Amino acid sequence: MTKIITSIKEMRQLTNELQLQGNTIGFVPTMGALHDGHLKMMAQSTDENDVTVISIFVNPLQFGPNEDLASYPRDIDADATKAQSVNVDYIFHPSEKEMYPQNPTIEVKAGRLATVLEGAERPGHFDGVVTIVNKLFNVVRPNKAYFGKKDAQQLAIIEKMVDDFNHPIKIIAVDIVREEDGLAKSSRNIYLTEQERLEAPHLFQSLRLAQSMYEQGERESEKLIEKTREYIEQHTSGNIETVAIYSYPQLIKQEQINGKIFISLAVKFSKARLIDNIIIGN
Amino acid sequence: MTKIITSIKEMRQLTNELQLQGNTIGFVPTMGALHDGHLKMMAQSTDENDVTVISIFVNPLQFGPNEDLASYPRDIDADATKAQSVNVDYIFHPSEKEMYPQNPTIEVKAGRLATVLEGAERPGHFDGVVTIVNKLFNVVRPNKAYFGKKDAQQLAIIEKMVDDFNHPIKIIAVDIVREEDGLAKSSRNIYLTEQERLEAPHLFQSLRLAQSMYEQGERESEKLIEKTREYIEQHTSGNIETVAIYSYPQLIKQEQINGKIFISLAVKFSKARLIDNIIIGN
Repeated sequence: MTKIITSIKEMRQLTNELQLQGNTIGFVPTMGALHDGHLKMMAQSTDENDVTVISIFVNPLQFGPNEDLASYPRDIDADATKAQSVNVDYIFHPSEKEMYPQNPTIEVKAGRLATVLEGAERPGHFDGVVTIVNKLFNVVRPNKAYFGKKDAQQLAIIEKMVDDFNHPIKIIAVDIVREEDGLAKSSRNIYLTEQERLEAPHLFQSLRLAQSMYEQGERESEKLIEKTREYIEQHTSGNIETVAIYSYPQLIKQEQINGKIFISLAVKFSKARLIDNIIIGN
Repeated sequence: MTKIITSIKEMRQLTNELQLQGNTIGFVPTMGALHDGHLKMMAQSTDENDVTVISIFVNPLQFGPNEDLASYPRDIDADATKAQSVNVDYIFHPSEKEMYPQNPTIEVKAGRLATVLEGAERPGHFDGVVTIVNKLFNVVRPNKAYFGKKDAQQLAIIEKMVDDFNHPIKIIAVDIVREEDGLAKSSRNIYLTEQERLEAPHLFQSLRLAQSMYEQGERESEKLIEKTREYIEQHTSGNIETVAIYSYPQLIKQEQINGKIFISLAVKFSKARLIDNIIIGN
């Protein structure tokens, strides 16, 4: 039975005991509103570790002043049932006060990697992400931690943090899980209207179009981006915020494709801002 | 026999083994040039823990461009002998390349607490300190870590980091160790000329003078500071950089003394910049 833990002290005692008994710990940090993308990570964690801990914490520090912190979906009972279905052992579900008795004085800053793409659109977002993930790593002290490739920039930043901070943790990158029609699973898909939900799979189609151009030999970023934008404009009512090509995981803008890159997009519908990406080359 | 470890990987394996065997680990981070102040912390650690690890690493990130990084005393053999004399088990002594294969991208910033006193005199110094201590904590994963009260601001900042980052580590504050004549032990005392060495004990005398005024009922910071400065000017050839009264550990400037404060001073001699402090009230 999945057990919910709300205090840092209790979580820490548990971690100590588990480690003393020689258990390996897998960890999946989430903000709840669990979907198949999360469950895939959890299932992989239960496969690869003795014990799996997930966290459910809607982290206020990673939301901008005009973002959806208040309306972000929260349903711990439904989430616990889903976690139970993939044999998660523990859910760490602290209050805001437990994680931030006051605003941190000693700050973690995501630096250069946060100045592009999502980081440029959402100032402070990745500082909030590294702040909470660093804290959770120290509380849960996992052997492995699982992050989705959908948030590719976040994944690159977390991997850099683990290197820079010497966290003794292996980061496992998990493939994007998609609906049958290709829409990437996301907690924010519920914000889509019925009509937008029908259009949204075209985001992935636009990335596939770019990928096929790449496979046919096109290496100019501008050409791929132009076609991707055109396709999105023709097939959806969303407003394109970003279509861009960056090296991965260095996150440096690429004019010519050479080596591993990702095509990243962010499109704003009436209430949902969706992101998606595809990694190409090596 | 004290063993020297130079690689993060080996240190990490050792920590894992020690913890699996149920050992508690005490940790004393240093930049080497060990003196009695360090040895006191190490002795306390060997008393209180199953295993004691110290680190010796001259951290370039905490030195300013015009500071003494190049000339900072380095003598690992002499240090190892001293560590051995107080039964230290392991010295973690990594190269610069081992700790910083490249400059960190994800940054740790000491924030408001670093904007006063030593932090104001030495821009970037405390960012460098929290960066390296956070890394060392993740590599060594101690149960307790020991810091001297001589660097009172550093101590306050490290304690805040442990709170903000949820490091599962208890910070132990160790009293200042002084020469018989009152001079606080410091790796930088060797920079003093013979004449300056004779004058330097007056720094502590100036703090004692302020303390006795406090004990006689004086509560105005300006009065205490004025007398302290006067005393230093009359008895030494050093240039006063700072004499200041701040609350402890909040590090907020105090006009009137009320609660726990510390009187902090920094005085520059020809080649040595010395600091000292005294904590008063509660």
